[in-house]
Parts: sequence; C-alpha cells; structure tokens
Amino acid sequence: MSTVTIVEVGPRDGLQNEASPVSTADKIALITGLAGAGVSVIEAGSFVSPKWVPQMADSAAVLAGLPPLPGVRLPVLVPNLKGLEAAQAAGVSEIAIFGAASEAFSQRNINCSIEESLARFRPVTEAALAAGMRVRGYVSCVLGCPYQGAVPVADVVRVSEALAAMGCYEVSLGDTIGVGTAGAARALVKTLAASLGMGRVAVHFHDTYGQALANILACLEEGVRTVDSSIAGLGGCPYAKGASGNVATEDVVYLLNGLGLSTGIDLDRLASVGRQISGVLGRAPASKVGQALAAKAA
Amino acid sequence: MSTVTIVEVGPRDGLQNEASPVSTADKIALITGLAGAGVSVIEAGSFVSPKWVPQMADSAAVLAGLPPLPGVRLPVLVPNLKGLEAAQAAGVSEIAIFGAASEAFSQRNINCSIEESLARFRPVTEAALAAGMRVRGYVSCVLGCPYQGAVPVADVVRVSEALAAMGCYEVSLGDTIGVGTAGAARALVKTLAASLGMGRVAVHFHDTYGQALANILACLEEGVRTVDSSIAGLGGCPYAKGASGNVATEDVVYLLNGLGLSTGIDLDRLASVGRQISGVLGRAPASKVGQALAAKAA
Repeated sequence: MSTVTIVEVGPRDGLQNEASPVSTADKIALITGLAGAGVSVIEAGSFVSPKWVPQMADSAAVLAGLPPLPGVRLPVLVPNLKGLEAAQAAGVSEIAIFGAASEAFSQRNINCSIEESLARFRPVTEAALAAGMRVRGYVSCVLGCPYQGAVPVADVVRVSEALAAMGCYEVSLGDTIGVGTAGAARALVKTLAASLGMGRVAVHFHDTYGQALANILACLEEGVRTVDSSIAGLGGCPYAKGASGNVATEDVVYLLNGLGLSTGIDLDRLASVGRQISGVLGRAPASKVGQALAAKAA
Repeated sequence: MSTVTIVEVGPRDGLQNEASPVSTADKIALITGLAGAGVSVIEAGSFVSPKWVPQMADSAAVLAGLPPLPGVRLPVLVPNLKGLEAAQAAGVSEIAIFGAASEAFSQRNINCSIEESLARFRPVTEAALAAGMRVRGYVSCVLGCPYQGAVPVADVVRVSEALAAMGCYEVSLGDTIGVGTAGAARALVKTLAASLGMGRVAVHFHDTYGQALANILACLEEGVRTVDSSIAGLGGCPYAKGASGNVATEDVVYLLNGLGLSTGIDLDRLASVGRQISGVLGRAPASKVGQALAAKAA
C-alpha cells in the first residue's frame, strides 16, 4: 500500500495564529497526543523573536518537556542564525525556513525582498546542514497573494529551486490564502516535480474557500506523497477574520483512508486530540470529520 | 468551454431540513434571487403531505407567487399520484421521484421496501410522462447508509436502472450521509455511466466529512456534468445534529470556475443570495466561499 506522510503543523503554524494563549503544558499534551495517534512529523515550535510571535516564546520549554517520542520528527521554524543557535541549544535536529513566491507578500510579511530573504536563509541553512540537521523549505502564496493577487508559476519555481539548491530536502508549497483550485494546484506540482522531483514536493493548503481537499486529491493524483495539515484546523485565516485557514488533519486523513493511502495515523485518536485542543481554545474543532464524529457519538 | 449544470436543491431539500420556518415570501425571494444569479435548475418545492413535511406545505403558493423566470426549470418532489395531481394543478412541468439504494434506509425513511417504493413510483412516472412532464430520479445512500452501513454498488445500479427504465431522464446519486470518498465516488459514477450513459448521471454530495468537493472533482474527471448543491449549505445533516449536510452551491461554483467549467452563474450574486437566506435563518452561510467573501468584504 502506498503511504503518505502527514506533516502536522498545528502546534506551530496553527497555534501561532490563534488569539487565545495556550500554555506550555497544553502544547506538550498536544504534541504528545498527536504522536500517540501515529503522527510522525510534527512541527513543534518556532525560534523567532518573542517580540514578533509571543505565542511561540516557550518553544524550548515545550521541547524540553516532551517525553521521548521515538520515530517522531519535530521540526521547528527558524528565521535566522540567532534562531538556529537557540534551536541547536534546544536539541533540535530539523528546522524549517520560509520564503514567499510573492514579492508583495515578502515585503509585507518579513520586510525584505524575496532575494534578500533567500540571502538571509543561505548561511542559516549552511550552518544547519553542517551541524547535521535536516532543513525543510516553505514557499508561501504559491497560488495567490493577499497583496498582489496572481502569482506567476515561474516565481514559485524560482524560489523553490533556490531553497532546494541551498539544501532543503523538501519544499512545501503553501496556498496561504486558500484561493487555489484543483486544476491550478495540479499544474503547479507537475511543474515543480519536473524541476525538483516529486519526492521533494510537499503541499500545504488552506481551506478558506473550501478547496483544500479537492486540491490535495489533484496533487495526490499527480504523485505528491507529503501533505501538511493542522489538527482541528488550528490557526484560522490571518488574512480574513472568521474564515477557515489550514486544512484540518482529520479531514485529510479521512480522505487518505478512503483512497487506501496509508498514513500510520489512528483517525479516532486523532479526532480525540483535536477535540482536546479545541476545548482548550474554547471552541469546536474546525474539522468537518471532527464535528461529524462528535455529532455521531452524541 | 465545457459546461456543468448546477441543480440547486436549497429551496426544497435544504429548507425542508431547517428547523426555523421560512415564509412563503422568503422562499419566493430565494428562488427569484437564485434565478437572477443565473441558476437554471431550481428545485422549488415538494408536494408531499404537510403532515410529514410541514416546511413544504406552501409549495403551490410559492410557485404561484414567482415572477416569470424564462429559461429556468423548477422541478418539485412528488411522492405519489396525489402529489402529482397537486403538482399538475400548480402548473409544474418537471417532477422528481426518489428511491434508496439501502433497504434499511427505505424502510426507515419511507416505510416500505425498495421494490415497493419503485412499484409505487411507476404509475406516478407514467402519468407524469403522459402529461408531458420531465421526471428526475434520486437515489439516496449510494455510498453508505446511516442504518445498514455499507451499500453494495450493485444495489445502486439496480435502483438507478429501474428509475431510468421508468423514464427518468436523469438519476441523481446521493451520498446522503456524506461518508464517501473520492475513489469510491469515481468508481460508482464509472459503473453507472456504463449502464445509463454519463449524460443521465448526476451527483448529489453531502459535506458531512468535508469530502464533497473532492468527490465532485473526481466525478467531473470521469465526465459527470450535472451537480446538485444547496445555496449556503441549507439543510444541514438530518442524521448528525450540528454536522454539515448538502454541499454549498457557492463552493461548487468556485471550484468549477477555477477548473474553467462554465455554469452561467454569477458567484458574487450567488453569495449575496446565500447571505440573504442565511440572514432569514439567523446564521452565517454554511459555505466556506460565502464566509471568505464576507470576511474579505468586512
């Protein structure tokens, strides 16, 4: 049976965008619960300045507080050499760096051009690789940008190739505002696969317009085998208050189970983890599978 | 450009399953608004006993109150000869009849076996066709049943063929509880197309497990060109309180626009109709596109 790797981004990308603060203990319980449900890659935190992202200020404490999780990879987001040092001190063995395919987004989000951001990440990646770490790359706005609108495929390819050339073992293509549809998603991964090889392409869809699972299906049909998702849809959409953000892991796993693609994840345990963290945040899981399983049980 | 026909089921299948009553005037405004947005097939009501479905007791008044809607077909649900007479008296030119692919569902939903239900619909269809009406067939529980679980494809084929043999110009395959995933949906329509011809196959997905758009994508890829949906996701899921039901028309049209498939529908006007009826019901549209467009505008 063919397998798909789920990269769970809820504890970082998700919680970073939640208004309610989540305690270190709750983060540890979340990551431990996800690992217990069979999730093998969990983005566990971020070593950025707490001035910019206060929600992630306790990432070192979260990592230090985790029980041993054999076989589970725990990448963290790192923006610069200072972040890398902190991540190293915390015993991290995998980091993620991030670029944008949209010039306007890069300027508004990280205050520099795409080229400048790549130049900034080069020494970080070099140092991480030299230290024996794995480095994952993110590219945001691959199917549209909240500031410039359309994003040329050539720009996505250029940034992805730059990240791969630096040494990223994988590039995760993010539809940051969830505007993409299946035909565009399919064409994009086809183009990227021709350049990087399909084994280095991951997809990261937001469900803002309800298209995430259809987009994922189209990408699976093209051969993509790594999918980012967020337990209980944690994170929402930072660009449209009240709209959906990250696709929910429960919904992706339900799709994959139905397609006969193996993830190693126990859906019932996963949904239970989703209900738990949603309870901490005081709301229902932003996952249709989560809601349906809860309604069925009630 | 290839076209897809949207069969809008909100005013009937949707409102029938809403707890809040909706006035005749609001139903007329809804149907008129949908037609104004370019929807060309709108299920406008149901001629069943008001004892069973009080929400549809005013269907004749709704039809009588509509302005002329040139080019718009307005099918109504009809359960028996008495309902057909009432529909004829109301000037209806198209009806829909309904069978289940699940024996358990047929017994629980309409108190008779599948065979009995088909025998009951035969004279209705004959009389309707003799009166020059068009007859559409629904088959429910095509990918799973709330009472018996799995439903064999052979049962879906048998009931669909029986409806087609009676003279239904099209059979709409309903995943009544939204449990199906893309591979099963694809295999089902492929099998049905071999039997009925793809031109007579429509699909009717519920989004209870978030799979509707992925399922629709898979069916479109197989050649399906008629899709049922419900404005603002009207109707919810009668089998799991709080869970999603009918896939939202806004979300389907967004997908189709992205794929370059034409529907003749103006998405912004459609979303505005969805906000209006949701306002009548006192809640937000159960459509991610509806929510995202509203959030973007705010």
